[in-house]
Amino acid sequence: MMFHIHQTHHTIADFQAIGNTLKSTIESNQTGVHVFPELFLCGYPLHDLCLQKSFIETYQKFLNELDQWAQKQKKSDQILLVGGIKYDLTEDGLPLKLSNVIYKVEAGSPISAIYTKQLLPNYDIFDEMKYFTAGSTPGVLEYKGKQIGLLICEDMWSSSFHQKDPVLDLKHLCDKDEIKLDMLVNLSASPFVIEKNEKRLNRAKFISNLFEAPYLYVNRVGAEDEILFDGRSFVVSGDKLECELARFRPDSATFNLKEQSGTYSPDIKAAQANTWEELFAARISPKAPSLSQFSPEQCEEVLEALCFGFQDYARKNGFNRFTIALSGGMDSALVLTIIKLSLKEGQYLEAIYMPSVHSSTLSYDLSLDLCENLGIPFKSLPIKFLHSTSKNLFTQTFQDSFEGLTDENIQSRLRGMLLYTRSNQIGSMVVNTSNKSELAVGYSTQYGDSVGAISMLGDLYKSEVFHLANYINETRNNIIPERIITRPPSAELRPDQVDTESLPPYERLDAILEGLLTYRHSMDDLISFGFKEEEVQRVFNLYRKSEYKRYQFCPIIKISSKSFGFGYRIPLSKDSNFYINK
Amino acid sequence: MMFHIHQTHHTIADFQAIGNTLKSTIESNQTGVHVFPELFLCGYPLHDLCLQKSFIETYQKFLNELDQWAQKQKKSDQILLVGGIKYDLTEDGLPLKLSNVIYKVEAGSPISAIYTKQLLPNYDIFDEMKYFTAGSTPGVLEYKGKQIGLLICEDMWSSSFHQKDPVLDLKHLCDKDEIKLDMLVNLSASPFVIEKNEKRLNRAKFISNLFEAPYLYVNRVGAEDEILFDGRSFVVSGDKLECELARFRPDSATFNLKEQSGTYSPDIKAAQANTWEELFAARISPKAPSLSQFSPEQCEEVLEALCFGFQDYARKNGFNRFTIALSGGMDSALVLTIIKLSLKEGQYLEAIYMPSVHSSTLSYDLSLDLCENLGIPFKSLPIKFLHSTSKNLFTQTFQDSFEGLTDENIQSRLRGMLLYTRSNQIGSMVVNTSNKSELAVGYSTQYGDSVGAISMLGDLYKSEVFHLANYINETRNNIIPERIITRPPSAELRPDQVDTESLPPYERLDAILEGLLTYRHSMDDLISFGFKEEEVQRVFNLYRKSEYKRYQFCPIIKISSKSFGFGYRIPLSKDSNFYINK
Repeated sequence: MMFHIHQTHHTIADFQAIGNTLKSTIESNQTGVHVFPELFLCGYPLHDLCLQKSFIETYQKFLNELDQWAQKQKKSDQILLVGGIKYDLTEDGLPLKLSNVIYKVEAGSPISAIYTKQLLPNYDIFDEMKYFTAGSTPGVLEYKGKQIGLLICEDMWSSSFHQKDPVLDLKHLCDKDEIKLDMLVNLSASPFVIEKNEKRLNRAKFISNLFEAPYLYVNRVGAEDEILFDGRSFVVSGDKLECELARFRPDSATFNLKEQSGTYSPDIKAAQANTWEELFAARISPKAPSLSQFSPEQCEEVLEALCFGFQDYARKNGFNRFTIALSGGMDSALVLTIIKLSLKEGQYLEAIYMPSVHSSTLSYDLSLDLCENLGIPFKSLPIKFLHSTSKNLFTQTFQDSFEGLTDENIQSRLRGMLLYTRSNQIGSMVVNTSNKSELAVGYSTQYGDSVGAISMLGDLYKSEVFHLANYINETRNNIIPERIITRPPSAELRPDQVDTESLPPYERLDAILEGLLTYRHSMDDLISFGFKEEEVQRVFNLYRKSEYKRYQFCPIIKISSKSFGFGYRIPLSKDSNFYINK
Repeated sequence: MMFHIHQTHHTIADFQAIGNTLKSTIESNQTGVHVFPELFLCGYPLHDLCLQKSFIETYQKFLNELDQWAQKQKKSDQILLVGGIKYDLTEDGLPLKLSNVIYKVEAGSPISAIYTKQLLPNYDIFDEMKYFTAGSTPGVLEYKGKQIGLLICEDMWSSSFHQKDPVLDLKHLCDKDEIKLDMLVNLSASPFVIEKNEKRLNRAKFISNLFEAPYLYVNRVGAEDEILFDGRSFVVSGDKLECELARFRPDSATFNLKEQSGTYSPDIKAAQANTWEELFAARISPKAPSLSQFSPEQCEEVLEALCFGFQDYARKNGFNRFTIALSGGMDSALVLTIIKLSLKEGQYLEAIYMPSVHSSTLSYDLSLDLCENLGIPFKSLPIKFLHSTSKNLFTQTFQDSFEGLTDENIQSRLRGMLLYTRSNQIGSMVVNTSNKSELAVGYSTQYGDSVGAISMLGDLYKSEVFHLANYINETRNNIIPERIITRPPSAELRPDQVDTESLPPYERLDAILEGLLTYRHSMDDLISFGFKEEEVQRVFNLYRKSEYKRYQFCPIIKISSKSFGFGYRIPLSKDSNFYINK
């Protein structure tokens, strides 16, 4: 029996294209089992969209047409297993109950839901319990004498939190009813997180060994605002990887069950990775936090992820032109370089540089050098005169001038204003250039350098930004001028300003932040691990005072297990002394 | 037996003040049962804060100290029923399980959790299933021979969605064990929504009749970012309202069980309001949408709600100074007026007016008149010169000028920049002046007039803004110049611009929006109700294209059952044709 993996992607709610893909699969008449990702019929994540009546009506109509169409086709030797929502509606067409199911679609038959997802992830970026009702029955499909075990995404993970283990439940059912599975399939929409793929494979191998059957995993591919679905569908039999599909792009493959070549070790007592939270929700371990340096392979993976996330967001939101504000510093240079590396036929990319009185000539020179290296149009829009005009306006109106932070912020906001004027003028998309370290300590100006349609580096600490820039230079002909990487980071908003005046050196800042955010460490923990009390206190203080800036920030391309953005929800109004006093 | 209702409020995580309130209650030695709101010990909603280790450690330490302290006190004839989180932690102090419980606190005894919330709201602004594990056991406390039934907030509502009815479960338990309840108490943290209070009372009366016992409801009071807890705690016996506490401020009352004066009709077959969703989640009815005009009482209530929400946000975030940008139009005038009405001793409020070449002298005159009426400092900061300077910069740099939308947006962003410069200069808070109609159709400039720390009118449609302004004038000496209310709304960003050029008249726009947002109607529904197809299509088009503006918007004081903000989550990247094509 042939199993066809469809690692396909369509924009959320693009029912036309989704339907066409399914129809042409049926018309192709390729025999065997065709497997599509979780919620393929509608897209994922939908959030509240799945409760909007316009959406529900269109989806139901689409499903109904597909059903009618399928029934009219001549019977053939193929079935399609397709993820989708199953609605139970009231008489008025309003949603009473939603299930995340596997539909069986075949020529000459009505469409039927054959399995309901049992484990609904509901942590970090996931809110599935807000929308779906969980199933409670293991799924086995018999098709042409073969027994196929069914799972949807999270179902493959056991979890102390869920207090449920669909894999073991399926095993018990098989043991009880004396069913020997020939195959397991998992329809997934599983977000990309760096280092996750290996754990996914290990868990799959455990399950394959447990059932002594190949395990087929088909994953969604595509970027949805912050969330990247990386694809990388695969088949394992025992510990053997039978095939693996591309990452960050649609792909397909066929697996012939007869040619299954792994051997099984069903005695395996424990999965190497058996709870989802341990792996992904947070590294909730009591050890000291550290930022593991990306390997060259991981650098390449991160680079692909960022290109993919950026391009898919631009495409889905209708942008082909991009304007980046260069400062002469590392972050904006890296953003420009990555966009350039991702650029497609017909797309336009430009850089603008907006010097103030505090900008050094070095910043101008380096920005220009970078643009020449990349072959990108470069324009300078000095803000000196707007800056002094604005200051005069204040002196005249309020008989009160300003210096310090006010004077720093106004430069940043004038730049935001000009950048968006340019964006309006040519219909281009602005990509934000903040990094995760800045976001964590609020080292940016609201409505100034924090503007943008999407944040490319918002889930990379500053040390990771440097690391990635060095990797690009090593592999891409030193395309980024070396001095951009080696000069001391500065906002250049007052004379001789450098970041380390107000912040600890980035290698320590980033380790403390990783402890605070990902490892969930308290101040006491971090001090006990050997970080300086004064530095830890300063970082926690900056973090707790900058929540309001993160609240109004743009979507952040997520690459780590804990990023700011949709999966990070902290009240603004609170007594935050608990962060620093015990 | 005396029941003391503590409708108290503290900032989230202000453990010092929370502990002092409980200790002084115990030290007061007032006999009887003291009832505090849901999650009183930590505050609500906490979102991810309840998973942060710093928070958990401090909370656990606080609870432990309170426990030790209570045990050392001399036994007395009182107990405290207090809402709080109960953590099950791992050895490393990380959260394995969280429960939303009622703690019994009494002098001379250890603190104990006596009841766990069974219905966890998980729709709209609520995400309780993300954090809490539900209880499954009805709660009855025997105290000095009296049987007290226990509920937490949502537990009082049955629901087809929850598929569980804690009230009936409690009734069955009482019937089975032959327990006659003497009293029911409900510890709540129930957000304010206009028109909700009456339904809450009706449901309480039903429960009181069902058990033939008084029903005591203590509700949290306080504003948490977007969400207002209105207090209004009460006791009913049968259909009789025994007492009702203040709205939008801390209050207390004592109810003597002996003096209970209602009579019961236990035969009541159905509650008037028996599902939460029907009442609050959305008016999911198939009838035509309409905006019911606020009654004078509701106007006063909305006014109180906005003053309360604004002031509590300012206090918790440390602001005593406020800067409002006046345009000469209705929205900013209303925001300024409401802040003025809410102003407390020591607070400073100022208005700035930032005319461009398109601003009429009438706008200046009306803004000045308003400020004189209100007694508020008024300054004009013309943007004409900054505007022309910016345009010249573009002409010089790009050999390309701009008109149209670009030229409109730049004016708005220059204002945003100046407004925040002023805010930086004097450390004042900027209050956003957008209304719900504008937010819904994207009729604002990102980083321009959409800036602000909090939105006061973001949950009021434009027609409600007018209605509230008229009400204020009727009851507050025509404090708002009449022409501000009667002149045609305009953004004044190009010559002779009026809102109705690009939008349907507000009374129709707002009805369509109420249909789309609150009633969840599709385009077809609205057209079938008699709205013009062309107008419905225009509104849906503007709505679907402006999601990105709402994404980066500030918190919105919530007064209706469906507001933009935390409880509204729609993906940016999607094929949105389903809104307009069927």
